[in-house]
Amino acid sequence: MSQVFCKFPLYKVTRDLSAVAMGLSPAETVIVNARLVNVATREIEENAGVAVVKGRIAAVGDVRHCIGPETRVIDACGRYLAPGLIDGHIHIESSMLTPCEYARAVIPHGTTAIMPDPHEICNLLGIEGVKFMIEDSKRTPLKAMFTFPSCVPAVEDFEDTGAEITAEDVKQAMQWEEVVGLGEMMNFPGIQYGAEGPHAIVAETLKAGKTVTGHYPSEDARGLNAYLCSGAANCHESVTAEQALLKMRRGMLAFFREGSAWRDLKETANVLKENPTIDTRYASLCSDDTHPETLCSKGHMDHILRRAVEEGIDPLTAIQMTTLNVSANYHLDREMGIVAPGRVADLILIDDLKQFNVSLVLIDGEIVAENGRLLAEVEPPRYERAAVRVMNLDPVKGEDFRIACDKPVQTVRVIEVIGGKSVTRAKTADLTARDGLLHADPARDILKVGVFDRHHNSGRNSFGFVKGFGIGEGAMASTVSHDAHNLIVVGTNDEDMALAANTLIECGGGMAAVKDGKVLAVVPLPIAGLMSDRTAPEMAKVVAALDRAWHDIGCNLPSPFITMALLALACIPELRLTNRGLVDCVRFCFTDLFVGKTDPQN
Amino acid sequence: MSQVFCKFPLYKVTRDLSAVAMGLSPAETVIVNARLVNVATREIEENAGVAVVKGRIAAVGDVRHCIGPETRVIDACGRYLAPGLIDGHIHIESSMLTPCEYARAVIPHGTTAIMPDPHEICNLLGIEGVKFMIEDSKRTPLKAMFTFPSCVPAVEDFEDTGAEITAEDVKQAMQWEEVVGLGEMMNFPGIQYGAEGPHAIVAETLKAGKTVTGHYPSEDARGLNAYLCSGAANCHESVTAEQALLKMRRGMLAFFREGSAWRDLKETANVLKENPTIDTRYASLCSDDTHPETLCSKGHMDHILRRAVEEGIDPLTAIQMTTLNVSANYHLDREMGIVAPGRVADLILIDDLKQFNVSLVLIDGEIVAENGRLLAEVEPPRYERAAVRVMNLDPVKGEDFRIACDKPVQTVRVIEVIGGKSVTRAKTADLTARDGLLHADPARDILKVGVFDRHHNSGRNSFGFVKGFGIGEGAMASTVSHDAHNLIVVGTNDEDMALAANTLIECGGGMAAVKDGKVLAVVPLPIAGLMSDRTAPEMAKVVAALDRAWHDIGCNLPSPFITMALLALACIPELRLTNRGLVDCVRFCFTDLFVGKTDPQN
Repeated sequence: MSQVFCKFPLYKVTRDLSAVAMGLSPAETVIVNARLVNVATREIEENAGVAVVKGRIAAVGDVRHCIGPETRVIDACGRYLAPGLIDGHIHIESSMLTPCEYARAVIPHGTTAIMPDPHEICNLLGIEGVKFMIEDSKRTPLKAMFTFPSCVPAVEDFEDTGAEITAEDVKQAMQWEEVVGLGEMMNFPGIQYGAEGPHAIVAETLKAGKTVTGHYPSEDARGLNAYLCSGAANCHESVTAEQALLKMRRGMLAFFREGSAWRDLKETANVLKENPTIDTRYASLCSDDTHPETLCSKGHMDHILRRAVEEGIDPLTAIQMTTLNVSANYHLDREMGIVAPGRVADLILIDDLKQFNVSLVLIDGEIVAENGRLLAEVEPPRYERAAVRVMNLDPVKGEDFRIACDKPVQTVRVIEVIGGKSVTRAKTADLTARDGLLHADPARDILKVGVFDRHHNSGRNSFGFVKGFGIGEGAMASTVSHDAHNLIVVGTNDEDMALAANTLIECGGGMAAVKDGKVLAVVPLPIAGLMSDRTAPEMAKVVAALDRAWHDIGCNLPSPFITMALLALACIPELRLTNRGLVDCVRFCFTDLFVGKTDPQN
Repeated sequence: MSQVFCKFPLYKVTRDLSAVAMGLSPAETVIVNARLVNVATREIEENAGVAVVKGRIAAVGDVRHCIGPETRVIDACGRYLAPGLIDGHIHIESSMLTPCEYARAVIPHGTTAIMPDPHEICNLLGIEGVKFMIEDSKRTPLKAMFTFPSCVPAVEDFEDTGAEITAEDVKQAMQWEEVVGLGEMMNFPGIQYGAEGPHAIVAETLKAGKTVTGHYPSEDARGLNAYLCSGAANCHESVTAEQALLKMRRGMLAFFREGSAWRDLKETANVLKENPTIDTRYASLCSDDTHPETLCSKGHMDHILRRAVEEGIDPLTAIQMTTLNVSANYHLDREMGIVAPGRVADLILIDDLKQFNVSLVLIDGEIVAENGRLLAEVEPPRYERAAVRVMNLDPVKGEDFRIACDKPVQTVRVIEVIGGKSVTRAKTADLTARDGLLHADPARDILKVGVFDRHHNSGRNSFGFVKGFGIGEGAMASTVSHDAHNLIVVGTNDEDMALAANTLIECGGGMAAVKDGKVLAVVPLPIAGLMSDRTAPEMAKVVAALDRAWHDIGCNLPSPFITMALLALACIPELRLTNRGLVDCVRFCFTDLFVGKTDPQN
């Protein structure tokens, strides 16, 4: 394993470890009187212990002979001792926290390693964005084992974006020791139909012997076979038990996902209920995307373990799913995910196997959290704020939002959003022009939407109409807008929309709600318009304030953030607005806002 | 994975594979109407199929759409379709066959990959011996994924041997693409007590990211912890269920061994009987050492599967043990050991899950055996016989075996062998001198034994007495004599002993039985005195003739071969004879043949 994920690589310390195991030199730390969660054999070993030296486990079982006068002895008092929890697929940016603050939030919950895919920031800052994430993650002991983004931009030629990742970039990145694999290969049609780009990108990963991570959101078994031919080792996109089971059967680690917005565990847990005797080594748990308030109120993998057990999964199986099954899938099982000699001493003590209260966390043999409190030292940031600021856009005016119309009544295309779902519906509506302009019609819940290129200040901005947000008066804006993360604004009137936009342009990005010329709430996300360097509790608080503001202006969608963040994502049906225009996401072509105007498809 | 173990590395053919999976281009081969042994989930999938192109699996499940006019369609007619069987720890030399002939013998039994440790020939020819094994193995499609010998010589300074392997050698060998790991690290005391040599050797393996294979034959849990600190990933030395279970619990793949002489499966299978609910991912099956007659009469991994099921192991679990569990342990599970898209098309059809009759074998998508008959092409040998001949020893005479004695009666140390066990007992006996010489005393089953340095013709030869072979008249000789493989001779009289020795010196090594000045039987092993280039059936025949000859001269030991082959192995208690003298294998020092003569320990 790379030296960056341990205190010492095993090959440098085998003699130190064996000396401790033999009782010839004392351990640095010993845990005694624990119930060992043995993920190798799926058993509890009573009255077990662990001896640690040089950041690694030297002995497991009866380890009293490893105690010397200087040894730190931890009495587990019968608590459960398990390997540190691993989140095998996660986008840190969704938490709106920096990697460092994310780590501070999750370590006390027992998470000791994550496999982040920084594809959000990569869309903005390219390789430099990934490097920022890697560097910032080094400020805490959490092992951030990066996967390098595979699909930037997510959809080509439909929008202006900040970066493009090529096979050559992937080839280079696979040499970085902080990179353990390729980020989710979202372009599954490209893999299925033999597109050169995505195949070249997976090829560079396979050539380097690293892990291709997957993204296959379909029921189609034929397509899954074709997708697996890319070498994709895991997938977090199963929303039904059938999807998850088929992946497991085909040797693909199926993540049962439980994120803040994607709550698939209830469904996917049925795999194990309906097939109680199957081998579960290809099942895992992951968060994918977690918002700050979830991290603060519910936790991280401990919360997902709790949920798994609620859904009827055996607790020992659930712990295997978040430890050994993940590390084995990434070929890291000789390093982590199991309490065994030679492995890194990433260990947690858990009070019970139902609530999963994590009372002690060790990483590389050091106590990093106790009773929910972070004890690890956090290094100061090493980045320049300016380097991660992406807001190349001049202030806007109300008149910039104008939609001219030379007819008294115009039929327009309207994007209809559906609460809690990522698909939109393509609708139409007749709008009456005033002063040669088309306006929002809040009474019919038809709002105006604008998307601004914030990468190049190109002036390639576009406007349309959206239905479903329910705002009575005001506007909301966000720079979290997958995957190009251009500035998106929705509102009832041009002046409020301009104010919302300018609020974000000024603070470097984030989310804002505006009404009657007043800013009701703003969540500044100065790092690429995606993340803040505030702490998780601080962010949870400002996000809660924004939530209240959304409701104040009349929005009654659940998680309207996410709905707005997907409004420009041209790879999901049916109708989207990017900064270049309205996209028919069924036919994959631009379409006109005005129905009937030079529209070859109609 | 190395390109040497597949037709094409996956990264070169992902597009070809996905095209077949999608039905856009036809498969080369399709198997339909099979019961798929799904080792990922431990289930049978009824009416399943597999589509193959470029040597790899493109699709699994319903694959009828992958059939084109040129596709070879194999109707499994309801037979079981499983991954090719893998033997994760094996010494080819024990079969007395070349790698090529070994492959010809095992492929029809469903073996598609082996992890050989060529440490026998390495003791004779060093790195060149390993290279010979690698080159010879390339003559057939069997995937010989070598581990590079770690302990040559096995015991230092007690005998003359042909080669020495250093950490620098290991460092070089780890760069060879045919080498997947380090051969069994037998020096477990060296690991436990921090010896520099063995730790440096495992360090070079770990640094290269390859697999350290283990050898831990003890019950001692403390010692196992210390041994595991070397990174050893697996071990084939468990002889009790307790030993095997402890290894599994500590994340070490425990091979349940069933070789020709080491029949540990009956005992080790109890792990699964006594713990029916444990996770079995760290359990496996291997042969370690198999003689030609076993290969011909019983088979290879198919035989061991049959034995496993006889011992009560669930058939699907047993198949997992010989496929996915092994490939995962070597981090080769993305390549083999599972029937899934992207993996190599190493596949077998089995008639049932009790007899395990293998009726069809494919390697890299090509049919290589059918109904027990090898169909694969075998390439001609590429080596010079002279290069692998190791017999640097002039012919001997009867008088060379003389043991002078100046007392009328002398108490001597006698090695007592025990049939079927590797340990010996240190005994003494009073011998009466005749003409100033000590002789064998067949009436008391006390025979003479001599060991000759065959590496350097140094004249460093030694003589002693052995009990337990039961030979009435005659002699037997062998150049298979672990681990230095010097020439060893046991007999009742010096003339027959000289004849037996000279028979082997002349033919380049092997095994011989002699009586009354006549050679009763000889098994020539011209390749390093260890192997023949004859076929397995031919070798089984000559070995059977030798067996009869042993019996003719009165030997009633089971497998006397093996007993004699271990007589010089100074790392096993209690008393051994190497070419340099008698070794007290409890105190690890030389001792004198004559009791009472300058013997500081007594």
